[in-house]
Order: sequence, then C-alpha cells, then structure tokens
Amino acid sequence: MKLYTFHQSGSAYRVRIALNLKGIDYEPVFVRGGRGSQDLRSSDYLRLNPQGVVPTLVDEARILTQSMAIIEYLEEIRPDPPLLPADPGGRARVRALAQLVASDIHPLITARVIDYLDTELRLPRERQQDWLRDWNMRGLRAFEASLADGPENGRYSHGDRPTLADVCLIPQVYTARRFGCDLSSLPSVQRIYDHCLSHPAFHRAAPESQPDAPGS
Amino acid sequence: MKLYTFHQSGSAYRVRIALNLKGIDYEPVFVRGGRGSQDLRSSDYLRLNPQGVVPTLVDEARILTQSMAIIEYLEEIRPDPPLLPADPGGRARVRALAQLVASDIHPLITARVIDYLDTELRLPRERQQDWLRDWNMRGLRAFEASLADGPENGRYSHGDRPTLADVCLIPQVYTARRFGCDLSSLPSVQRIYDHCLSHPAFHRAAPESQPDAPGS
Repeated sequence: MKLYTFHQSGSAYRVRIALNLKGIDYEPVFVRGGRGSQDLRSSDYLRLNPQGVVPTLVDEARILTQSMAIIEYLEEIRPDPPLLPADPGGRARVRALAQLVASDIHPLITARVIDYLDTELRLPRERQQDWLRDWNMRGLRAFEASLADGPENGRYSHGDRPTLADVCLIPQVYTARRFGCDLSSLPSVQRIYDHCLSHPAFHRAAPESQPDAPGS
Repeated sequence: MKLYTFHQSGSAYRVRIALNLKGIDYEPVFVRGGRGSQDLRSSDYLRLNPQGVVPTLVDEARILTQSMAIIEYLEEIRPDPPLLPADPGGRARVRALAQLVASDIHPLITARVIDYLDTELRLPRERQQDWLRDWNMRGLRAFEASLADGPENGRYSHGDRPTLADVCLIPQVYTARRFGCDLSSLPSVQRIYDHCLSHPAFHRAAPESQPDAPGS
C-alpha cells in the first residue's frame, strides 16, 4: 500500500496510526500539505484525490480517500487486531467518539478553514487563534464528558485496547497542544493521550517521527 | 426505538432516512434545535447527549449519538436492506462520499458555527450567507467530481440502490438549497437528489414532512 501523507495533517496521522496498529507495511509518499500547498493542487494528485487533501491510500488498483472510510476499509480487509469492539453497542460508542473528533472538531480547524478566516474574512491573527482553540476545546470537553459516561473506561477511550476512538483522539490532542490549548481540565483525555504515546504504533505515527517533518 | 429529532437538522434527517430505508418503526421525540435552542441545553437532554445536539437514538438501554455512528449501528443490527455495498472497495467508496458530506461540509454550516460567526466574530449577515454558500458549494463540487470518477454510477450515488452516500447527500442538498446555493453546475448531484426524493423513504424523512415543521 502507498499512503500519501503530510506529517502535520491530523487525518493522515489517523491513518498512519491505524496502519501501524494493524501491522500493515506501507510506502509513504510525502506531499506538502498546509496552507497554499502546491503539491495538493497538482493535476497528478487531483486525479487521485479530487478534493486535493491528504490522506490518499492506494491499495493495488484501489484509490481510497477520506480517513474514516480508509480506516473502516482497513478494519474490513485486515480485521485483526480489531479497532472496533465486537458488540454493536460498543462499536457504536467507539464510532461516536471517533466521529465527535472527525466531524465536530477537525473540520473546523483545517488549513482550508484557516485560509478562509485569513484571506476571505481577514480575521486578525489573534481571532484566528481564538477560533482554533475554541473549537478544539469545545470538542475535547465533549469527548471528556462522553468518556465519563461510559462504563467501559480503561487505559484507552474504550477499555484496555486501542480503538478507532483513540486513533482519532490522539491527532486531535496533538493539534490542540500545537495551538496552545490548555488541557488541564481534561484529565481523562490527557491520561489516554499519554498512555497512547507510549504505544509504538502511536509513537511511530507521530508528526515529529515522520521523515517529512522539519529537522528529520 | 426513540429518535430525538429536529426537522431542520441535517444529521437527524440522515438518521430518519436510514430508519425509513430499513423499515424500522421509531417513535420521534421532537426537540427544538437551531440557534439558541433551550431544549438542547436542558439537563434531561444533556444526560442523553452531552454535546447537546440532535440526533440521539435510544434503542432499549442503549443511548446512541453521532448520526454516522448511529447509521453504522443500524446497518449492523438490521443488515437488510443494506446501506453499504458488499465489496470492500465499494464500501470504502460509499463511506468516502458520505464522509465528504459529514466531515467536510456539514460541520461548517451547523447552528453552532453560525452562532459563532454572528456573536463571536460579529460577521455581517451577508458574509455569513457567503460562508454557508461557499462551504456547501465547495463540498458539493467535490462530491460531483467524485461521482464522475466512479465506474459505479446509476440512479443513485453508487449504483441503482440507495446507500449511505445518498443518505448523507440528500440532507446536504436540501440545506444548500435553503441557503440559496445555485446547483446548476452539479448535474449528477441534482439528478440523484431528484431521484431520491421520489423514493418514499427519503420523501417521508424530509424536513417539510415532519410533524415539528412549521405549518405541519
């Protein structure tokens, strides 16, 4: 498999973690993402991914886009180790936690949204920072509240094995810290983050561990 | 099952379509959503849904949140008729189309984002409208482009049966029209929208068909 990835992309980070957890070897193709990226606008890349975003996963003849769809695909073709629990209720809880990140936090803080705030709305830098911190914190507070509700808490978001919920949470916490969010009011989120980073699959997927990170 | 729903909520609309397509009877509980909703902030509702958003589905003792997780749950407990194709590649394509809507369009045009643009950023009404139209159109253009790429086009987004992709697309097109988007450059999206609305499961789920819609 070939993964088009950018070290700082939260959604590429998710797919890197999932591939590592499943022990799937992949060939990374580094595309420079972020604001004003030319790589993502190249006609070659747009043929693979008409939205011009990372990640894209190529599995032989299949071209796969959208990180959540890619990870469900990996779960189906390589079910072991599972990223979802076996019971429908548990699966729904894990997918809801994952979706809270993927739908309610991440989309509001992507490079294209920051670009809109900057060039279309001409928002001062300080208000842009507020936006990024506010949406990160609202979502992570909801994640923390949802964790407290669950009877299934262990070392990870759902029990004692990493799931899709952690695959989504960890990149979002990374981003929140990068934007200077104060996470001290979110003890469960912080505990899970620290625990995940001690797991080699998460550690190897981290932005700073990527060959395309500055200083690598 | 009991569905906490608001007629105009795009994500509740998705779940209503999925329930109808699967022929699952449900009891609707109407909560007034939209900007400044008090229903969603009530302590009773927040116990069910800590984020204070619709939809919530209650299936006996299970409380389910996040529309995409709810629909995957329905697919698992009631697999027939399926909302996803049988082959992993087709499933990934349908989930990617669905996620394009659920992650890349809908989150940017929710009531809480409009509220932020209005009360935090004090954006003039006209710029708010631009924001809503711009994100709707960018996403729907990407959806149209992705349809053109697929070899599987039929009357619906993926072949000749409704899938999760249509379940997500139709509410988004409804919203885009409500915000005054000009969809004339999106012939496949328009054709699928018109075709879906002729299907009773979609028709009965439409906002204007709901008992909590004004004038109902």
